[in-house]
Amino acid sequence: MAVPPKLAARLKKVRLFAMDVDGVLTDGSIIVLESGEEVKAWHVRDRIGFFMLRESGAHFHTAWITGRKSNAVKGAAENLRIGALYQKCEDKGAALREVTRKFGLIPEEVLFIGDDLVDLPAFKAAGLAICPADAPDVVRKACRWTTKAAGGKGVFREVADAVLQAQGLWPRVIGRFEKSV
Amino acid sequence: MAVPPKLAARLKKVRLFAMDVDGVLTDGSIIVLESGEEVKAWHVRDRIGFFMLRESGAHFHTAWITGRKSNAVKGAAENLRIGALYQKCEDKGAALREVTRKFGLIPEEVLFIGDDLVDLPAFKAAGLAICPADAPDVVRKACRWTTKAAGGKGVFREVADAVLQAQGLWPRVIGRFEKSV
Amino acid sequence: MAVPPKLAARLKKVRLFAMDVDGVLTDGSIIVLESGEEVKAWHVRDRIGFFMLRESGAHFHTAWITGRKSNAVKGAAENLRIGALYQKCEDKGAALREVTRKFGLIPEEVLFIGDDLVDLPAFKAAGLAICPADAPDVVRKACRWTTKAAGGKGVFREVADAVLQAQGLWPRVIGRFEKSV
Amino acid sequence: MAVPPKLAARLKKVRLFAMDVDGVLTDGSIIVLESGEEVKAWHVRDRIGFFMLRESGAHFHTAWITGRKSNAVKGAAENLRIGALYQKCEDKGAALREVTRKFGLIPEEVLFIGDDLVDLPAFKAAGLAICPADAPDVVRKACRWTTKAAGGKGVFREVADAVLQAQGLWPRVIGRFEKSV
Repeated sequence: MAVPPKLAARLKKVRLFAMDVDGVLTDGSIIVLESGEEVKAWHVRDRIGFFMLRESGAHFHTAWITGRKSNAVKGAAENLRIGALYQKCEDKGAALREVTRKFGLIPEEVLFIGDDLVDLPAFKAAGLAICPADAPDVVRKACRWTTKAAGGKGVFREVADAVLQAQGLWPRVIGRFEKSV
Repeated sequence: MAVPPKLAARLKKVRLFAMDVDGVLTDGSIIVLESGEEVKAWHVRDRIGFFMLRESGAHFHTAWITGRKSNAVKGAAENLRIGALYQKCEDKGAALREVTRKFGLIPEEVLFIGDDLVDLPAFKAAGLAICPADAPDVVRKACRWTTKAAGGKGVFREVADAVLQAQGLWPRVIGRFEKSV
Repeated sequence: MAVPPKLAARLKKVRLFAMDVDGVLTDGSIIVLESGEEVKAWHVRDRIGFFMLRESGAHFHTAWITGRKSNAVKGAAENLRIGALYQKCEDKGAALREVTRKFGLIPEEVLFIGDDLVDLPAFKAAGLAICPADAPDVVRKACRWTTKAAGGKGVFREVADAVLQAQGLWPRVIGRFEKSV
Repeated sequence: MAVPPKLAARLKKVRLFAMDVDGVLTDGSIIVLESGEEVKAWHVRDRIGFFMLRESGAHFHTAWITGRKSNAVKGAAENLRIGALYQKCEDKGAALREVTRKFGLIPEEVLFIGDDLVDLPAFKAAGLAICPADAPDVVRKACRWTTKAAGGKGVFREVADAVLQAQGLWPRVIGRFEKSV
């Protein structure tokens, strides 16, 4: 799990992890019951990633910015203590600039993970644009880093691990998990 | 995401995107609760594809023609503003000819995406027959284009992107997503 | 979709398609809600395979023999007009011999598709033992044919297509789907 | 299905199969309905593995130790007669030491299967640390055995089969399934 060398300098500055939901934290499947109720499939290792950010001792911010809307996403955001949640968002660039200001940050301190055209404006508003392995070509070209993981298979966790390593927080996080021995 | 060269001439004429549902817009899984209720798993990038068609500025038609029936499909069709929905369809060829006439089109302006034997009559009624990467051999032989994506993994989106590019509408669509910057 | 040559002679005799459910008609996932309710994920092309058997003009029998029990399986068996359903079956060998007699057949006319140790007795009671691509080694060794498809990805359909071809019924089945043109 | 040679000596001593749930017995997907209800997807061959342990004639213990909590896991543990269940566990190392004592065992008789950082303390408390094929590098380095199966695809079964073989119980288990012929 080496930190991509060219990215290390940028990763060192990251204070806000902002991201799309469907296709990034999920594999893009929109699972719908006959009642219209939606089901989301998250990955346990991504969830632990949000926990690791908090345990790192550094003060990171998190934001989810999605064009869709569901109670499942709202519940998960509360559960994982996501700092800002934008649902039914029609302009992800504006949303990301807003949340960047809200947290008192500058774009260089912000990364955004997205997987589709609707994420292009957010990529431009972020200091570092990242997409999953299975994103379309047009999105990959707009991003500086394509993760090894595909959507829903630990994309966020791969990014979180890399940032924690680049910022020298890895031993502390590992220690947090090992200390209970 | 290059447009397949041999197809470009045909793609330029397309006005109607007609398709099967299970195995094309889904991976073929029929997910059933004990109550008999059915669950469908769509892909977020296909859904955005229907949105892109509308945003392209051209006047495209859409139709779903399926041999099965569920409220989940009805709800999704309304949600995505699909122009014509045929459920429990026993003759997909007749249905496609009907909807072609209804929209005032000729077969050369119609593409159909299907994945199985029940789709053969519709392939014959369409100007362009397309199937997913995981369709059976007998279906692939009946089709002019086998997409790179497997069923449920963005088959429709791959087709939509190619048509938009062939018709010179790509910059406009991309611009629609970028302009909010 | 070539018929495996060594199997052709045996496939010609098949009158009963008997099979396990989980791991054969599904990918082995046992999906459970908090209420204890179970969800099953079938494949649309397997379902069409049962339809094709009926449309072939030949008189085939079908049986599902499973060690588990759920309403979802019962509903699907009715829906697909499965001739015999054994749930919570503790001796699949005895069940298969019973259903073979019930339909007035001999073992040479029976194939059984299974994926695990609990299916070994049924393999011995069948004239032809078949397992999915992802079955454990000990099961594959007990079977004459390992399908190219993994569980839940069209295993039964692969078998049905091969039997229909071996028995010269393929043109009729294809014709059934094409004639509506 | 050969027993990994270097592990055979250790596998011979195993009396307790302890493991994490999400990412080991499942593929790591956390599937959530809008109501907040959770869905778990187990694998049928893992379930049969728990049955095989009981049928082996040896007296094995089982324990599930998870940081999450759901009725689905509670129900499955009862159904599969798991000897000890720890949910919402914050210190898996302490839990594993507790259950080891409870069953009157020593660490050499205990294996633990986990997939993430939260499992590190349990790996240290176990005589044999095992992880799925898709575990992160940091976890794989902490484990003596990485199974061929990925999470949710039969990891536990692969381990159970190897222990049964190493302890010479395989013929008895196979015989149990064949005897009904």
